[in-house]
Amino acid sequence: MGSTPRGPRPTLTRNARPATFTVDAHDETGALVPTPIAGEHPLTLYVDKREIVTLMTLGAAPEALAIGFLRNQRLVGSIDEIAAVQVDWDVNAVAVTTHHGLADLEARTKKRTATTGCGQGTVFGDLMADIESIHLDEAMRVDEETLFGLLNAVRVHESIYKQAGAVHGCALALGSEILTFVEDVGRHNAVDAIAGWMWLEGVDGRDKIFYTTGRLTSEMVIKAAQMGIPVLVSRSGLTKMGHEVAQQVGLTMIGRAVNRHYLLFTGAHRLVKSGERAHA
Amino acid sequence: MGSTPRGPRPTLTRNARPATFTVDAHDETGALVPTPIAGEHPLTLYVDKREIVTLMTLGAAPEALAIGFLRNQRLVGSIDEIAAVQVDWDVNAVAVTTHHGLADLEARTKKRTATTGCGQGTVFGDLMADIESIHLDEAMRVDEETLFGLLNAVRVHESIYKQAGAVHGCALALGSEILTFVEDVGRHNAVDAIAGWMWLEGVDGRDKIFYTTGRLTSEMVIKAAQMGIPVLVSRSGLTKMGHEVAQQVGLTMIGRAVNRHYLLFTGAHRLVKSGERAHA
Repeated sequence: MGSTPRGPRPTLTRNARPATFTVDAHDETGALVPTPIAGEHPLTLYVDKREIVTLMTLGAAPEALAIGFLRNQRLVGSIDEIAAVQVDWDVNAVAVTTHHGLADLEARTKKRTATTGCGQGTVFGDLMADIESIHLDEAMRVDEETLFGLLNAVRVHESIYKQAGAVHGCALALGSEILTFVEDVGRHNAVDAIAGWMWLEGVDGRDKIFYTTGRLTSEMVIKAAQMGIPVLVSRSGLTKMGHEVAQQVGLTMIGRAVNRHYLLFTGAHRLVKSGERAHA
Repeated sequence: MGSTPRGPRPTLTRNARPATFTVDAHDETGALVPTPIAGEHPLTLYVDKREIVTLMTLGAAPEALAIGFLRNQRLVGSIDEIAAVQVDWDVNAVAVTTHHGLADLEARTKKRTATTGCGQGTVFGDLMADIESIHLDEAMRVDEETLFGLLNAVRVHESIYKQAGAVHGCALALGSEILTFVEDVGRHNAVDAIAGWMWLEGVDGRDKIFYTTGRLTSEMVIKAAQMGIPVLVSRSGLTKMGHEVAQQVGLTMIGRAVNRHYLLFTGAHRLVKSGERAHA
């Protein structure tokens, strides 16, 4: 939906926060251990001066996060609606300005679904609304060796997690090549930031793989599907509703993926053994 | 706040969902692997017939979850306000009935903070409001060996995680003894379910330890503090805001706790080396 921008890019700040901070801790031997920990900052999102929500974020990509949140919550239909995104950490706020205002904003922000995850997520509107309008690319294929290559690329990628833990990482990939990699204290923020990046860069999801360290819950699957991405890979497990939604939208869901191991749950036709015919 | 019930226990259903479901997957050898995965169900919370939020939950303790959500969101001040909690999975709903209605419900549910975590959590009202009114027990002490005993008790505890992954677990403990252990697909749901259990059972938090598999973010720390619990332990890491809030409320925060290892970040006075004087 609206993935190729037709107008000028929005005016953006580029206001990332430091990713880690060091605090003192004592370990079990009594030794003083300076420990890097992940940053976490409140960021209140305003659209045309109207307060929408406050997100708690690592702050690595706040502009993309704001755009992606609006995209994935279906409050904005295309990047062309957005005139400016301005982050100001002095007031912990990001102000999004649209060209023509958002129709029905009040009604659309009314129904609050707190979705799965470490926090209680919020997906405005009906979680499953419009799901039947999602069509993922059926012809897209991923070679198994390409999958392993991507898992390795993720493994070696420099990351905050390796230093400080307490963050989730998501990557958008074309084959085994990582196009963008975002970490946040909230996995859903990382997904949203990638959705925002895709809109800003005019990147379509149809031939991409989405990797996450986080669990494949219903919200994760719905977001990936809304982003047009047919293949979703996680190092972790999945939930029953995530599985059901993946089946319903025809998404390829691969869990417990690490090194050369994985479990393929749905959409088996897209994963191809190198040199052999497709699974199932 | 209101931890010893003065009136009759609310009328409750006891309507847990099955915790795991088995689905087929194929692994990298092509073998068919029947795989247990965690359940995830929408549960819409109504208070006096007014829709509040929809939580995505494992469904292990939905009545306690509803009560604890209301407690931790500060929408209800004591268990005595609650007349009944009735879960009906046919309509994915839990109906909470109060004795006298909730004052200012509309205003109090107005400000939405999507907190950290895999999802975007929601804490109605100002996240940090009333934080200065929190006073945690300063005299409470935990023996280091008791901490290790608790970590071991958690390790051996039967759990959904061991079967199906994709869930977070939380335990409320007195010393090394687990009083209640709750898992949910959302870590914040697990915390809330424990808060609800404490209210139902008239259990005070002041001499308890709270253990979580999840990260120690600002929301986790605030909830533990609101529940009156002075010691918070996690297998995982922490965020900067979690650390700041812990310092502000004077909570003892122990991260990366596993086997006989841990990092003690704040509130060092409560952790005592067995047979020796307190840290710091």
